[in-house]
Amino acid sequence: MFENKENRTDLSTLGEFGFIEHIAKSVSLKNASSLKGIGDDAAIIDNGNKMTVVSTDMLVEGVHFDLAFHPLKHLGYKAVTVNLSDIYAMNATPHQITVSIAMSNRFSLEAIEELYVGIFMACERHEVDLVGGDTTSSTSGLIISITAIGTADKEDVVYRNTAGVNDLVCVSGDLGGAYIGLQLLEREKKIFVENPKIQPDLEGNDYILERQLKPEARKDVIAKLKEQKIKPTAMIDISDGLSSDLLHICKQSDVGSAIYEEKLPIDVETFNAATEFNLDPLICALNGGEDYELLFTIKQEDYEKIKSIKEVSVIGHITEKNAGVSLVDKSGSIHPIKAQGWDALLE
Amino acid sequence: MFENKENRTDLSTLGEFGFIEHIAKSVSLKNASSLKGIGDDAAIIDNGNKMTVVSTDMLVEGVHFDLAFHPLKHLGYKAVTVNLSDIYAMNATPHQITVSIAMSNRFSLEAIEELYVGIFMACERHEVDLVGGDTTSSTSGLIISITAIGTADKEDVVYRNTAGVNDLVCVSGDLGGAYIGLQLLEREKKIFVENPKIQPDLEGNDYILERQLKPEARKDVIAKLKEQKIKPTAMIDISDGLSSDLLHICKQSDVGSAIYEEKLPIDVETFNAATEFNLDPLICALNGGEDYELLFTIKQEDYEKIKSIKEVSVIGHITEKNAGVSLVDKSGSIHPIKAQGWDALLE
Repeated sequence: MFENKENRTDLSTLGEFGFIEHIAKSVSLKNASSLKGIGDDAAIIDNGNKMTVVSTDMLVEGVHFDLAFHPLKHLGYKAVTVNLSDIYAMNATPHQITVSIAMSNRFSLEAIEELYVGIFMACERHEVDLVGGDTTSSTSGLIISITAIGTADKEDVVYRNTAGVNDLVCVSGDLGGAYIGLQLLEREKKIFVENPKIQPDLEGNDYILERQLKPEARKDVIAKLKEQKIKPTAMIDISDGLSSDLLHICKQSDVGSAIYEEKLPIDVETFNAATEFNLDPLICALNGGEDYELLFTIKQEDYEKIKSIKEVSVIGHITEKNAGVSLVDKSGSIHPIKAQGWDALLE
Repeated sequence: MFENKENRTDLSTLGEFGFIEHIAKSVSLKNASSLKGIGDDAAIIDNGNKMTVVSTDMLVEGVHFDLAFHPLKHLGYKAVTVNLSDIYAMNATPHQITVSIAMSNRFSLEAIEELYVGIFMACERHEVDLVGGDTTSSTSGLIISITAIGTADKEDVVYRNTAGVNDLVCVSGDLGGAYIGLQLLEREKKIFVENPKIQPDLEGNDYILERQLKPEARKDVIAKLKEQKIKPTAMIDISDGLSSDLLHICKQSDVGSAIYEEKLPIDVETFNAATEFNLDPLICALNGGEDYELLFTIKQEDYEKIKSIKEVSVIGHITEKNAGVSLVDKSGSIHPIKAQGWDALLE
């Protein structure tokens, strides 16, 4: 199955995507019902008319969250949201989740209740049922593994690998906020650790803090696309950053893309905070990650219809593969886009 | 949702089942498709004719396994098996799994490949597809979270809470082996740690070691029950121990039970090893856990049919609730059965 090697290969040399590709190469789907396996936001299981859509994510303390500034209630909410986001990114509707939790004995019942309050809030908002899970001890820290299950009609499912040349590239909401929110929280934590008497200065940054601590999955955008009878030609949710996720669509669809700096949606609060941190807001928008917005492509003929959805920006178009994937800056210069998003295994 | 408390309640005061009950009380299922939520081996999602059956389990290094004696290949195999066992325990057929893994950077690519070789072996054996997952870093140790997805016709699903008075209590395979296997591995590890020159003495114990390191999910028993046209009236897989899992069936079905010491299936290797450890083989069979055998009840009229399945032992019967849950020993004395199985949160 795998080549026999005498060597020891560091996982970090492959990175998360390299590792997933490496494993995926050994998988061949044998059940007729396994319509789509590894390689998209979610797996698709064929039940006849209705497809079951399944996505899973694991959040690890010290890697994905820091309990010094991540309230448990928000964490529960976020853990559910990031999974539902994957279901929406298939143009499907989530209905159930399972929640598995490993926790060390430093957590009290009341603390874990807080976590579940957040989980239930997200369930309520998205009309999703908690139907199962597992609870266990951990030797250190908190680990949350959630699986989301949804449904879609077969003809509604949108994959990553079906973007076509000349399609328009669209993104919901705005970008870079979650990343800047994290920078702010980490700065204030550092100040607090150095001098516990100094209170964190988070004022006026509600929006970017919420982007980091309590992101939303874009149920509303999926609903509006349906209302307008727009079926995206390809779709992904932005968890790793616009650059990285656009590259996923292009690589898997075997196409190129040009997106335009002046079209990228950046909130004024994100812009100001980035400037304060001496960070380029454009770089934050491209590479920040964790925005959980939808990145999708549509047919050119849907342009008028998409303009009526105020939550969506058209940021570029799909090109032939040999044109590459690039950003056109405000002066008209062309910059190739590289994946610089968050790579879990390199943390 | 939860009562507001000033106190700090230790999770260990509730135990795993207490905690699950506590959370389950706050859940009310809202989607019509959520047929069965928390409280059985797996959740049941209604898709019309076919039910989707979903189960999830998390394995944590230092809690569920010790890499000092658990080869990664076996561990991958076991992680899949324990999930599939839950699907079989609903009288359903597993078709897909997702695998999420958090690992520290002490693991090489080659090590994780070994883990996946075991995962793929179990998939192959049970004709199951790996369709998705998540890979991430951990700050320490290895955590494996697997979700198994299967299907069943609506009329075939067997729950825990439907055992009836006078039904026969049956168990597949034999009991206590996995627990004794673990005792043996822990003893040899201790000797090795104290004196690395002494080689582990595992000879003649292949069966109990395999019960611990590489358990099987009873696909074969489910198939034979179908062949014989026996539909169990209630079923659970034995992960926590016969006592604990029989109590689950009885509590949820609102019945009592009497099982007979002389009927309990104990392999001769388990018996001998238990004696060597000065442990009572009966106690190992009752409370050992991790055997992943099926515990189920059938109608009395199926007695002749069940006798033809050599992998199954009839160990007792279901009684009225007020008779309690008890073991009848070889002398005819009656002992109330208490849950003394493995409780994840008390570890």
